[in-house]
Amino acid sequence: MKIVVDAMGGDHAPQAIVAGVVDAVNESDVINITLVGIEDQVREELKKYKFPQEKIEVIHAPEVVGMNEPASTPVRRKRESSIAIGINLLKEKQYDAFVSAGNTAAVVGAATIFLGMLEGVDRPAIGIGLPTLKGKAFLIDVGANTEAKPQHLLQSAQMANVYAREVLGIEYPTTGLLNIGEEAGKGSGFEKETYKMMEEKLTNFIGNLEANEVFTGKATCIICDGFVGNIVIKVAEGLMESAGKLLKREVMKNPFSIFAAGIFKMTLKEFKKLVDYSEYGGAPLLGVNGLVMISHGRSSPKAIRNAIRATKREVEHNIIEKMIKDIKSNG
Amino acid sequence: MKIVVDAMGGDHAPQAIVAGVVDAVNESDVINITLVGIEDQVREELKKYKFPQEKIEVIHAPEVVGMNEPASTPVRRKRESSIAIGINLLKEKQYDAFVSAGNTAAVVGAATIFLGMLEGVDRPAIGIGLPTLKGKAFLIDVGANTEAKPQHLLQSAQMANVYAREVLGIEYPTTGLLNIGEEAGKGSGFEKETYKMMEEKLTNFIGNLEANEVFTGKATCIICDGFVGNIVIKVAEGLMESAGKLLKREVMKNPFSIFAAGIFKMTLKEFKKLVDYSEYGGAPLLGVNGLVMISHGRSSPKAIRNAIRATKREVEHNIIEKMIKDIKSNG
Repeated sequence: MKIVVDAMGGDHAPQAIVAGVVDAVNESDVINITLVGIEDQVREELKKYKFPQEKIEVIHAPEVVGMNEPASTPVRRKRESSIAIGINLLKEKQYDAFVSAGNTAAVVGAATIFLGMLEGVDRPAIGIGLPTLKGKAFLIDVGANTEAKPQHLLQSAQMANVYAREVLGIEYPTTGLLNIGEEAGKGSGFEKETYKMMEEKLTNFIGNLEANEVFTGKATCIICDGFVGNIVIKVAEGLMESAGKLLKREVMKNPFSIFAAGIFKMTLKEFKKLVDYSEYGGAPLLGVNGLVMISHGRSSPKAIRNAIRATKREVEHNIIEKMIKDIKSNG
Repeated sequence: MKIVVDAMGGDHAPQAIVAGVVDAVNESDVINITLVGIEDQVREELKKYKFPQEKIEVIHAPEVVGMNEPASTPVRRKRESSIAIGINLLKEKQYDAFVSAGNTAAVVGAATIFLGMLEGVDRPAIGIGLPTLKGKAFLIDVGANTEAKPQHLLQSAQMANVYAREVLGIEYPTTGLLNIGEEAGKGSGFEKETYKMMEEKLTNFIGNLEANEVFTGKATCIICDGFVGNIVIKVAEGLMESAGKLLKREVMKNPFSIFAAGIFKMTLKEFKKLVDYSEYGGAPLLGVNGLVMISHGRSSPKAIRNAIRATKREVEHNIIEKMIKDIKSNG
C-alpha cells in the first residue's frame, strides 16, 4: 500500500509529519509512504529516525501553500506545492491515498479539481469521527461545502453510512439530520426538504437530531452542511479547552487542591481526549475520486500516525468502490 | 415594578415556577409578580409558601400551550392561554415585563404579533449570557429567527451592545460575527455581506469569530443567525452532559476512585454551571416592543428566580428606550 503524505502541511511541519510517518511505517509492514515537500528539509528530519529505508520515499515539491491562502492556490498559483503534486500523484494508479495536515480549503479545492467527483456525488464533504456515550459517531460535513443543497446532504449521508460500516466498524449505522428541533417540519425550507429526501431514500433514517444529541449516540451518522458542522466541532473543541481552564481555577480554590490537582490533571486529559481528533485519525474528505485524509493543522506526530492508520483501513476496505455502488443502487 | 410570569410554562410548571416566584419576591422589595395560569393549580402551589400576600397576584388563564405545539398557537388557537394573556397584559402600561419557561417558539410568535417590533428592528432575536475566560459574553440569536438576512444580524448586534452594557455590566463591549474562519471574506455570501455591514456600522466590530473562540472572551457580543446559535448552545449543553458521563466512567477506573469520586462530583458540578443557564437568568427576547424573558423549559425554581432578577435589571436600566435610541442614531 502506497500512501502519499504532504510533508509541509500544518503548524508543525515538517517535524511532526515526518515523526508521525516514521511511527506509521515502523508499526505496519504493509504501509509505504511517499513524503512530498521541500526535499532538503524533509531528508534532514528523516535523518533523526530509524526505519526501513525502502519504506519512505521523498518527492520534491518546491512550493508550500500557507494556512491562510485561498482554496484555489494549489490549482491556480502553486502547481508545484506539496498539495498540488501530492494530489496529482494520487491520480496515478500506484498510489492509494493522500494525507495532509495543511490548509483544508486548499486540499478540498485541489482534490475536487484534480481528482474530480465520484459518480453520483455533486460536492465533497469532510467527515469526522466523534466519541459518544454509545461508541463512535460520524459527523459530516464539517467544512467542505458551506452552501449545500438538500441532495448534497443526502449524498453525504450515503457516503457516511459506507464509512461508518467499513472504517468505523459500526455494523448497523443510523442516520440523523442535525436540526434545531426533533419533530419533522422543524428548521427552514432547506432542512424540511432534506428531511423529506432522507426519509424517502435512507432506510436507516431516524429523523431530526438536535445538537445536544451529537454526543449521546442517538444516531451514528450525523448529517449537516459544512457551515453548521464546522461550528459544531469548533464549539466542542473550544468549550473543552475553555471549560478546562475555567474549571482548573475552580478546583484550585478547593482546600484539597494539592491532592485534587493530580486527579484533576488526569481527568482533564481524559476530557480533552474526548474531542481530540488526534485520537480519531483525521477527517476523511469524501466525494472526490480518490482517498484523501485531512488531519488537523495543529497535528502532532500521533495525530499523523493515527491519520495514516485510518487511511490504511479505508484502502483495505475499498471504500470508494463501495460508495459508488451504494449511491448507484439507492440513487 | 410589576412582572408578569407564565405559571404554566416548562416541564415543571406550575411547581417550579411558583417556587421561583416566591423566592424572587422574598428577596426583593421592589418586585411584584402577576402569575398567569390555571388559577386553582397556581393557588394550590402558593399555599405551600410564606411571602407578603400583596406581592403576588394570580390571573386565570384556562388554556396551556404545549411544549411541542406550533408557534402560532397562542395567536391562532389558544387566545386564553397563559402565554397569550400574559403577553397581552404587558401591552397595558402597568406591567413592566413578561417571563416564561414555556414553548419558546410560541412565546416568540405571540410577542411578535401582540407587541409588535421595535422601531428600526425587523425580526426578534434571543440572546443568552455565556461564561468565558474573560468574564461574560452575550450570544445572539439562539433560535428566534432561523432565516435571517444580514440587516437582521446588524440589528441584533446593536441590541446586544445595549444589553451587554446595561444588563451584563460590560463597560466596553466588542462585537464579533460568528463564522467558519477568521479572515474577512470567509463564509458564504450571507456572512460576507453581514461582515461588510457590521464593519461599516459598528465602531466596536472586531471581525469574524470562529466557534472555538465563543468561550474565550475574544468578543463580548457574538452574533449569528438563530439556526447557528441554537446549534452552539445545544452542542455546549450536550457536550457538558455527555462528557461528564464519559468522564465519570474513566475516573471510576482509577484506583483512588473512592476519594476521586468526591472531588469529581464537585468538579462536575462546577463544570455544568459553566453552561447552565439557570445561573444566567434566562434568555431575553430582543426586538419586540416589550421586555420578554425566556427561561429554559427544564427551568428549576432557581432558574426562574434568576430570570426574574435579570428582568429586574432590564426594567431598571430601561433597555427598550436605549435600544431604540441606539438603533436610530446608528441606523
